[in-house]
Amino acid sequence: MTVGRRIWAIAEGYIPSGGLEGDSALVSHETACILNAQEVDVNLRITLYFADREPVGPYCMPVLARRTLHLRFNDLSDPEPVPRDTDFAVVLEADAPVVVQHTRLDSRHQNISLLSTIAFSE
Amino acid sequence: MTVGRRIWAIAEGYIPSGGLEGDSALVSHETACILNAQEVDVNLRITLYFADREPVGPYCMPVLARRTLHLRFNDLSDPEPVPRDTDFAVVLEADAPVVVQHTRLDSRHQNISLLSTIAFSE
Amino acid sequence: MTVGRRIWAIAEGYIPSGGLEGDSALVSHETACILNAQEVDVNLRITLYFADREPVGPYCMPVLARRTLHLRFNDLSDPEPVPRDTDFAVVLEADAPVVVQHTRLDSRHQNISLLSTIAFSE
Amino acid sequence: MTVGRRIWAIAEGYIPSGGLEGDSALVSHETACILNAQEVDVNLRITLYFADREPVGPYCMPVLARRTLHLRFNDLSDPEPVPRDTDFAVVLEADAPVVVQHTRLDSRHQNISLLSTIAFSE
Repeated sequence: MTVGRRIWAIAEGYIPSGGLEGDSALVSHETACILNAQEVDVNLRITLYFADREPVGPYCMPVLARRTLHLRFNDLSDPEPVPRDTDFAVVLEADAPVVVQHTRLDSRHQNISLLSTIAFSE
Repeated sequence: MTVGRRIWAIAEGYIPSGGLEGDSALVSHETACILNAQEVDVNLRITLYFADREPVGPYCMPVLARRTLHLRFNDLSDPEPVPRDTDFAVVLEADAPVVVQHTRLDSRHQNISLLSTIAFSE
Repeated sequence: MTVGRRIWAIAEGYIPSGGLEGDSALVSHETACILNAQEVDVNLRITLYFADREPVGPYCMPVLARRTLHLRFNDLSDPEPVPRDTDFAVVLEADAPVVVQHTRLDSRHQNISLLSTIAFSE
Repeated sequence: MTVGRRIWAIAEGYIPSGGLEGDSALVSHETACILNAQEVDVNLRITLYFADREPVGPYCMPVLARRTLHLRFNDLSDPEPVPRDTDFAVVLEADAPVVVQHTRLDSRHQNISLLSTIAFSE
């Protein structure tokens, strides 16, 4: 099953610093959900863009064959963590086709709010 | 009226285990809404992808001509139910063009939160 | 400015029957937002699809040149109103290019919840 | 890295007049998030469309090379501010490819509600 594209972009990145604590599922988070429906592993290169400084990256990671990776930007650390309360944007480059969906859970105000969209693909 | 595509993907699948009880409309659920605007019935084959195990499927079902099916992943059972609180992704293959939109209602924290996006189509 | 397409689809239609009362902006509603950025009026034909009965329509209306119409499905009446608490889907046909975005405000549980996506275009 | 398109549209524009006060991050706002992943600055021309009057614009601004701009429509002032509680739609024209994502935070009812979608691109 070959489904997807190699270049994806998310223009709306933002990790709120506050939110519900304790249950990691309810902590405010920003996610790129990646589906690799193919028979081969895929290598991802992620670059982050900011409002007022140079891009950061690449963040490199595999997505295994026939697997999905729901990647929290909260958890990225190499080359550096993603700052909270800061506008950013994302380009994801894969060496084989994948599908990328962008989701945020925002629990700053003690209620859960969600947004999601299929990312832009080239 | 021929509208749609044959291959669709949802990368962000997740059914929260908690939520409002009683009214089935308010129970946390994950949905693929499928529109078959054509004059012929369509057969769907759905495959689920996970983070750490082999894909499961196909789940097979028809979408009748000139009908919409709002399919809750909560209700799938054959070949097996969809685990709760677990990241997954979805590929839907139809034997004629359909339109697929992905929606989640999350009522874990006793408020309603919604997300929706037209799925990715090949 | 010519921007858009002629055929659009929304697979996830649903008008909750409950919600906040009084302020019409906060009443639960389902909307197709249509942008006609062109120099000519556009005629829309809308057909609704259901889970278990024949499609209803067309609902016909103009979108004037250089205008946007944020159309609430709650307000449709001819040929018949849209039932509440009922799954439906939508095909919109325009005689010139428009852009369609689907939005729902759900205030059933006394909080506001939103979803939105650019509709599927052929 | 060249990613994106030159013409984008958002059909669902609306800035609620009420909401949480104090923290600007929680004020109700409507945003176009723009990613310019290229090596050259991009010039944006934004036109707003309304339900019952002529379009307003252009609003002109740059998006610098390798930067993202999360533009709040709340903050536009030249040629005129964007009215609150008023339906509008948006066309963005860039002189080189960008990616545009539309997001709203609605805090009218003292909870946070979010919607987001990749905008429509020509």
